[in-house]
Amino acid sequence: MTRHLELLDTTLRDGAQAEGISFSVQDKLAIVETLDDLGIPLIEAGTPGSNPKDLAFFKAVAEKPLKQGQIAAFGATCRPKLAPADDANIQSLLQAGTEVVVIFGKSWDLHVTEVLRTTLDENLRIIRDTVAWLKGQGKRVIFDAEHFFDGWKAAPEYSLQSVEVAAEAGADVICLCETNGGCFPNEITRGTAAVVERLAGRAVVGIHAHNDAGLGIANSLAGIEAGARHLQGTLAGFGERCGNANLAALIGNLQLKLGYTCIPQENLPLLTSAVRRVAEVANIHLPDDMPFVGRKAFAHKAGMHMDGVKKCSISFEHVPPDAVGNSRRFLISEVAGRSAVLDRIRVLAPEVEKHDPVVERVVNRLKEMESEGYQFEGADGSFELLIRKALGTYKPFFSLDRFRIIGERPSSNPDTGSMAMVKIVVGDAGEVTAEEGNGPVDALDRGLRKALDRFYPRLSEVRLTDYKVRVLDSSAAAGAKVRVLIESTDGRRVWSTVGVSTDIIEASWIALVDSIEYKLIHDSEEAAAAQAR
Amino acid sequence: MTRHLELLDTTLRDGAQAEGISFSVQDKLAIVETLDDLGIPLIEAGTPGSNPKDLAFFKAVAEKPLKQGQIAAFGATCRPKLAPADDANIQSLLQAGTEVVVIFGKSWDLHVTEVLRTTLDENLRIIRDTVAWLKGQGKRVIFDAEHFFDGWKAAPEYSLQSVEVAAEAGADVICLCETNGGCFPNEITRGTAAVVERLAGRAVVGIHAHNDAGLGIANSLAGIEAGARHLQGTLAGFGERCGNANLAALIGNLQLKLGYTCIPQENLPLLTSAVRRVAEVANIHLPDDMPFVGRKAFAHKAGMHMDGVKKCSISFEHVPPDAVGNSRRFLISEVAGRSAVLDRIRVLAPEVEKHDPVVERVVNRLKEMESEGYQFEGADGSFELLIRKALGTYKPFFSLDRFRIIGERPSSNPDTGSMAMVKIVVGDAGEVTAEEGNGPVDALDRGLRKALDRFYPRLSEVRLTDYKVRVLDSSAAAGAKVRVLIESTDGRRVWSTVGVSTDIIEASWIALVDSIEYKLIHDSEEAAAAQAR
Repeated sequence: MTRHLELLDTTLRDGAQAEGISFSVQDKLAIVETLDDLGIPLIEAGTPGSNPKDLAFFKAVAEKPLKQGQIAAFGATCRPKLAPADDANIQSLLQAGTEVVVIFGKSWDLHVTEVLRTTLDENLRIIRDTVAWLKGQGKRVIFDAEHFFDGWKAAPEYSLQSVEVAAEAGADVICLCETNGGCFPNEITRGTAAVVERLAGRAVVGIHAHNDAGLGIANSLAGIEAGARHLQGTLAGFGERCGNANLAALIGNLQLKLGYTCIPQENLPLLTSAVRRVAEVANIHLPDDMPFVGRKAFAHKAGMHMDGVKKCSISFEHVPPDAVGNSRRFLISEVAGRSAVLDRIRVLAPEVEKHDPVVERVVNRLKEMESEGYQFEGADGSFELLIRKALGTYKPFFSLDRFRIIGERPSSNPDTGSMAMVKIVVGDAGEVTAEEGNGPVDALDRGLRKALDRFYPRLSEVRLTDYKVRVLDSSAAAGAKVRVLIESTDGRRVWSTVGVSTDIIEASWIALVDSIEYKLIHDSEEAAAAQAR
Repeated sequence: MTRHLELLDTTLRDGAQAEGISFSVQDKLAIVETLDDLGIPLIEAGTPGSNPKDLAFFKAVAEKPLKQGQIAAFGATCRPKLAPADDANIQSLLQAGTEVVVIFGKSWDLHVTEVLRTTLDENLRIIRDTVAWLKGQGKRVIFDAEHFFDGWKAAPEYSLQSVEVAAEAGADVICLCETNGGCFPNEITRGTAAVVERLAGRAVVGIHAHNDAGLGIANSLAGIEAGARHLQGTLAGFGERCGNANLAALIGNLQLKLGYTCIPQENLPLLTSAVRRVAEVANIHLPDDMPFVGRKAFAHKAGMHMDGVKKCSISFEHVPPDAVGNSRRFLISEVAGRSAVLDRIRVLAPEVEKHDPVVERVVNRLKEMESEGYQFEGADGSFELLIRKALGTYKPFFSLDRFRIIGERPSSNPDTGSMAMVKIVVGDAGEVTAEEGNGPVDALDRGLRKALDRFYPRLSEVRLTDYKVRVLDSSAAAGAKVRVLIESTDGRRVWSTVGVSTDIIEASWIALVDSIEYKLIHDSEEAAAAQAR
């Protein structure tokens, strides 16, 4: 018997309240797309009332076709002594133009009297009026009962009244928030059960937990066990202080073990890549030991564990890694490393056998480059070139004679503060050229393409779509190594390449050259195949 | 009523099974000292049987006087068809010379037949004989029942027999291990209760949980609730795959909220520094959002939260941060609001009132700069300069006339592939100079300092300690804006500054200039204060 749970992801709202996270409109749209692709039905995306920048996002997202997700705007109940119609924040909430709105109000008497500084009755009036008014505007209303559980522990009857008035005013969902993250599962179970009983079906009950006590996942499960059927959290656990309940782990637990459906079953293998994509957009380093989706989540190091997993995978794995799109890794195990490498080699050269010396060459080169700071997990294009070089099938399309970058400030035009002079050689011919750009890497990229243009006109199809810089060993400060990751597309293919150097320009150059070679190799192989037909 | 729990930390054994962790003997001794200072009574420190290198550690630690901690050696039960006296691994366990030994054995029938590949009866014989033999050697014996809960779910009677024979053979503690980390709290509660009932006081019951389902902390608490009085985990949560139960969070929860004593009450404020020390020795970056002890654990960013905490700290904090040696932080950002900004202004100008126009100026400037891509959460130094500019107390120490960067490849010396020419003006004097570096930013940093040296010789005290680059809107590829964050120190103070531009060199320049101005301002204020005395 499967039961359905409605998920709400608040990465773009509660997640953005985490230190170090600051989303641009572009970032937000990218995360919406990822969550929508995964099948998250509700995406809480910002607070148009307190943050005018968010309105630009709501306007942009309204024009974006989504597969199934709905966008929700978030805001507070109206202010004391104001009618909702006269509250500017409530008005901006409407301007977001979403069908679903999430409204938070006070359920803990201490917050009413000490923080909001109004009377307990006025707070109930505020909740009732705000919910009723938004329902009158035709919205689906989710009422977030802030600090519900602390309130329920301190003054149970008042906390229950606060959610009851919201339900009476027509709220579709009453979401119980464990805002401070300090409660225990048994408290959540009892508090949720009390609400389920009190509301007697007048609204769906939800749970929203935080991780301050390390219990965000357990508390969410406790709420569901007691009858909650709406679940709020953030896909990667991002959020204020210690984060929100981690939806990825919750989806894994609920859907693989407890018989609930949260996202379409066929999307479950997208879970790991979705979480990593969100972290990448947020530029937050995901802990490697994150449950279900971390890089180490199915990594085995102890010899006895590897032996056990080989005999019978459930002996040391609570779920199959591929069920959530993650993969098993045997550490310090040549055999494991080699077989993964062999798989990749065979894509290019299906005839290669396990003991072919080329496997050894690739493994050794990989280790060497990784020790220099390279990482190929996000650089398929560069890894393919590495294999081609080891196979001996690689031939260079051009070589660099030299480049020189000049950057100066002040600059007469800040968009072209850098110039690059490039000399490349193709066969017997050379080409010297120069270009300008808004930074040294931009100038170099343009210069290189311009120099190659007369030899390889199809390079004009290539666009760089992503550019990332990671400072390795950042404590070496300005003298540190940097790793540059570039993503390119020619409209049909997408590939990514990597470069490492203490000089960011050289690191970028290495990644740029790999990107261009990848394109040229694939174009020439396609042309050869077409000719053969 | 307080109840006592015996803690066992296994950072040096189970923690060392995590990817990326490899302790030297020195490292292990440093961690033992940290755990001992904190008051952890049992420190599981290695497997002399399977890892001969560990014997060197046990010899060294035996000569180290500890305040209160006891070292435990870890090993497996004897092999099938062998007597413990004839098993080399058991012999090396004794060579560790510890009073306490931890022995793990199989409690899940599947592991006995599929992994150990022996009979169910032989496994019981193995457990009984090993425990009895070690008791005969005068050891205190902790029996780790591996996969107890998976076993209890699959074949409850056999799993109970496996722990019962250990107790009958004299084991002092029967520790129930949730080895795969995939069980739920209610399963732990029932399994533990079943053992407590079966053993009826013949041994202390313990709990050892993992975090694969994100429930390591909750499962440990569930075991304790059901009667476990011995708790295993790792202080920072390190361990195989997704880690072991995080002892820091457990100590916080148990001792501050649930009335248990685990470590001496007066040591609780050492908790945060102890965890950070362990992470430093392990060279693992601690997640900033780690419960209780993370850098963000008490960081407040939303304006309403800061306001609430100021009115009444429990409104948004589950425990007082100083109770565990952590500290509260108010973050500066566009969502922070005026009151956080006012607090920061008052550090420099205590006389400023809430409605002073300078507050508005700072808030507006902050929003403006954030919309350009600045972020001040991690850039206290730059934010202070922003305030000084708004207050009108800022005077520049120098100005840039111009700089020019030249970078070229190939380079005769790759460590000096870039050169910077810099002209700065101080009062009526100018200084032109050049420097080389291993990249453009490095060259510029050196050039700027060199140019300023004759005016401000104390700048030689400044070192850059961190350098981070974040590409904003990375989909704009090489033309994207970048944000550079720099951390500097002069040996006494640490400050951080930020710069944003499409040109990474200009962004670095902005952050470098802020860093230098911060130093010069603070030095000159100190000098003025000294003169006034």
